[in-house]
Amino acid sequence: LGEKLRELLLVEPMRPETEALLMFAVRQEHVATVIGPALAQGVWVVCDRFSDASFAYQGGGRGLLPERLGVLEQWVHGDLQPDLTLLFDVATAQARARVASHTVVPDRFEQERAPFFEAVRAAYLERARSAPQRIRIVDAAQPLSEVARQVQAAVWQLLQADAAASN
Amino acid sequence: LGEKLRELLLVEPMRPETEALLMFAVRQEHVATVIGPALAQGVWVVCDRFSDASFAYQGGGRGLLPERLGVLEQWVHGDLQPDLTLLFDVATAQARARVASHTVVPDRFEQERAPFFEAVRAAYLERARSAPQRIRIVDAAQPLSEVARQVQAAVWQLLQADAAASN
Repeated sequence: LGEKLRELLLVEPMRPETEALLMFAVRQEHVATVIGPALAQGVWVVCDRFSDASFAYQGGGRGLLPERLGVLEQWVHGDLQPDLTLLFDVATAQARARVASHTVVPDRFEQERAPFFEAVRAAYLERARSAPQRIRIVDAAQPLSEVARQVQAAVWQLLQADAAASN
Repeated sequence: LGEKLRELLLVEPMRPETEALLMFAVRQEHVATVIGPALAQGVWVVCDRFSDASFAYQGGGRGLLPERLGVLEQWVHGDLQPDLTLLFDVATAQARARVASHTVVPDRFEQERAPFFEAVRAAYLERARSAPQRIRIVDAAQPLSEVARQVQAAVWQLLQADAAASN
């Protein structure tokens, strides 16, 4: 179901509100069938994109207010939030060049123009400012080895804090 | 898009919450692209099922709380409500016999069992009790001519009230 919804989201034109409802429907199903059961078993979950992406794309990119998106976020996963979110930040021109270098057919989002991606990036950074404890910004313009080092440092810090909280 | 989402809703197994989000996504798109523009032109809109159906099926049938569904209803169409809703009520056994008489392949909802439809009917009637001015219950066990007469009377009453309000 998630794959079929994602497919619709990537190809069908639709209103921003509809896009937001579908994104959160995909997330609802993902939390209920994958993330929730894994957490219940004590498994660590690493997720490529979560609700911050909706605040960036449907919020910044499509113009929906953060307060409206917050209603859906609350409806779908309540107080469940990631312990740590890594935001890989890079200038949009550089990001688009990277995407173009390995994308054959761009989807409905990848076809957007520069102002859309600037707004998405700005909304991501704004979201990071509003949750500095959870969201760590990683400078993704750096060489891969340096990006990896920063990721390791952030994860290590989380584990240390977790260990300290357990003692 | 609406048709594709409806298709998924009718065949794919999913969580009640996901079902509710998809139902309201369909409704969002329908209000934005069909109902809203028609109303803006002064056209009268007659709609076969609206949000009351979500309170009946995803609420009564699937067990989601009316308060949770009310959040999505508010999110999607705010204060836009029908001027008049006709609820064609009939005992579930009789309704199912009618459906069976002209349905070849039952969809995911039609495949449900009797308690599901009893709960759907109860939720519809509860919803009618909570909005007696808007929702008129029509006894659909009666002969078609009598059902038609009751519909005409309800619509006539709405037009009279509308005319009185305009004067």
